[in-house]
Amino acid sequence: MITTPTLLLDEQICRSNIKRMAEKARRNNITLRPHFKTHQSHEIGNWFRDEGTEKITVSSLRMADYFMNDGWKDILVAFPVNILEMETINNLAKRIRLSLLVESVEIVRLLQERLRSDVSVYIKVDVGLHRTGVSWDDHETISEILNEIKRMDNISFGGFLTHAGHSYNSRSITGIQNVHNESTSRMVSLRKQFFGGNPGLIISVGDTPTCSAVEDFSMVDEIRPGNYVFYDYSQVIIGSCSPQQIAVVMACPVVAVHRERNEIVIYGGSVHFAKDNITDTDGITIFGKVVRNNESGWGEIIEGSSLKSISQEHGVVSVPEDVINEFKPGDIIKIFPVHSCTTANLMKGYQTITGRRISMMQSYV
Amino acid sequence: MITTPTLLLDEQICRSNIKRMAEKARRNNITLRPHFKTHQSHEIGNWFRDEGTEKITVSSLRMADYFMNDGWKDILVAFPVNILEMETINNLAKRIRLSLLVESVEIVRLLQERLRSDVSVYIKVDVGLHRTGVSWDDHETISEILNEIKRMDNISFGGFLTHAGHSYNSRSITGIQNVHNESTSRMVSLRKQFFGGNPGLIISVGDTPTCSAVEDFSMVDEIRPGNYVFYDYSQVIIGSCSPQQIAVVMACPVVAVHRERNEIVIYGGSVHFAKDNITDTDGITIFGKVVRNNESGWGEIIEGSSLKSISQEHGVVSVPEDVINEFKPGDIIKIFPVHSCTTANLMKGYQTITGRRISMMQSYV
Repeated sequence: MITTPTLLLDEQICRSNIKRMAEKARRNNITLRPHFKTHQSHEIGNWFRDEGTEKITVSSLRMADYFMNDGWKDILVAFPVNILEMETINNLAKRIRLSLLVESVEIVRLLQERLRSDVSVYIKVDVGLHRTGVSWDDHETISEILNEIKRMDNISFGGFLTHAGHSYNSRSITGIQNVHNESTSRMVSLRKQFFGGNPGLIISVGDTPTCSAVEDFSMVDEIRPGNYVFYDYSQVIIGSCSPQQIAVVMACPVVAVHRERNEIVIYGGSVHFAKDNITDTDGITIFGKVVRNNESGWGEIIEGSSLKSISQEHGVVSVPEDVINEFKPGDIIKIFPVHSCTTANLMKGYQTITGRRISMMQSYV
Repeated sequence: MITTPTLLLDEQICRSNIKRMAEKARRNNITLRPHFKTHQSHEIGNWFRDEGTEKITVSSLRMADYFMNDGWKDILVAFPVNILEMETINNLAKRIRLSLLVESVEIVRLLQERLRSDVSVYIKVDVGLHRTGVSWDDHETISEILNEIKRMDNISFGGFLTHAGHSYNSRSITGIQNVHNESTSRMVSLRKQFFGGNPGLIISVGDTPTCSAVEDFSMVDEIRPGNYVFYDYSQVIIGSCSPQQIAVVMACPVVAVHRERNEIVIYGGSVHFAKDNITDTDGITIFGKVVRNNESGWGEIIEGSSLKSISQEHGVVSVPEDVINEFKPGDIIKIFPVHSCTTANLMKGYQTITGRRISMMQSYV
């Protein structure tokens, strides 16, 4: 029985999402290196193994360690090298094929000085997001880094990697496709520039919107989507998935109903959902979208509903007038999260719709 | 040595914050029932005991249980009764003086039906935030709830409680004072209406901005601020505290420096800071404010700096041109969080500036 905010997982939808992406990668004859930061769970990781996944991406060294301990042997840490964690890097590099991201000559040198085992490095390329990485047209810096890597004993070049995160600003499949075409052509031009189009060299791209919406990945070698394991309401708005493909909902107790303003107060706030929000199709900023409750999981979106505001522990849900009388204190209301990655990270565990608990990586203590 | 994002705590500043509020409550001859949702820590709770605190506020039954287990005997759960957790409510009510919030006749009845021990209830009053509670001028509903409480064996009336959270929209002490004056006069009018101004009846108010900025609390009986234990950069902007009163900073590894755009990439993202943001004095939305690093803690704010954007694990810091050369990969950068409550909730522990770990309540597992 659910008595507090709970992250419900539909295993069947989740496994379908995992399978669909694995099949797309196989059709394109490219490597799928899924990002495990979304689910952070040994058990869900095994569902990827069932679809043939052997290489994975994580967002921290701690997460690499967590998955190494479950037998994963080829892990990319898609985060700039944190030189302060060399002890962890060396521990990982000794035991698995570890790939890291570099974006400066300085970091390659610091890394080589302190490495005690071999690692592979990808050069992080900025194709337009302007967050991290060397700009795709800064051939001078890229050339310097490549030369530095060649001189190093413990460091081999793994390829060019980018994250076209600006695909998240798209609101249609065409928009996503445009971001993908631009970023891929920039990556391919780099391969041509430095390796004459050597097809053995890895171009690694991928985020959930492009990997979901685009069918043809013939120009790249590796994709690294993560969020698609669950999807969420943002991905519906972006155009990456249908509501039927969302594999998680937050199940929250109703604690008060304000019929005079068609609002429901729920136990479920920013410490459960996180504070991610998105502009809904009607122009309103929301923190979640209400779905029909049913015994075996959840149903359709309740049109016109929203999780309109959240505090630390509670949230306020707005529903249309003709729906408000369906809710009373003591009920469970089910809500699609806006961003499943940050929601899962806060909830620290799942409950399947059949009532089974699934654990995930825990916090620092 | 700090190698990953770490929440640093200056015990001396923290204890001064705790002491200052305790003294203000004593001067006003009112009860201070501090909200413990900000720190969520047994050890920091003891620092309040050192200043005479015996009654506390928490935001969930789970948190009440956590603090009951450290010997706290008078706990208010400042959250609407969640009838699905009656087992926990009964366990708590058996062992401590438990106070709960009600805002409808329906909930009072459901509570009475299932209670096995005595509880005290406050009626939650909405003085303008329109999140939860009975509107302050809805005398009919308040009267009905009071009558219902009178008929119940296990439920006693504790008082009227409000949270004037719209004080958070203030940007000056005068602004905060105005919110306080309006909300307090509304609460006092309720006391007069129903109890002829009986001074024994509790009017409980309080949030960090009003409790910090206002000196005269003679019209109320109890205050419940929480965030002031640490404060944060939001409270500086609101006008509740000075930067010197902020007791926590995030210490984050620098992983890349982009001198061409005066930006620093840090290991520290939304899974560490949370995604709370605020409009800074220069009109820019920020997720944190950089301070000078020093060996024994931290120093002044670096004017013109900001944590300008955050992803799941990393953040981008912007600093003025004349400061960028002070930073290189492998350094630690220190940043005031925008909202210390949600940052602490994610970090799940503290490190004092003398290097000692302080634990806090852990996640559901």
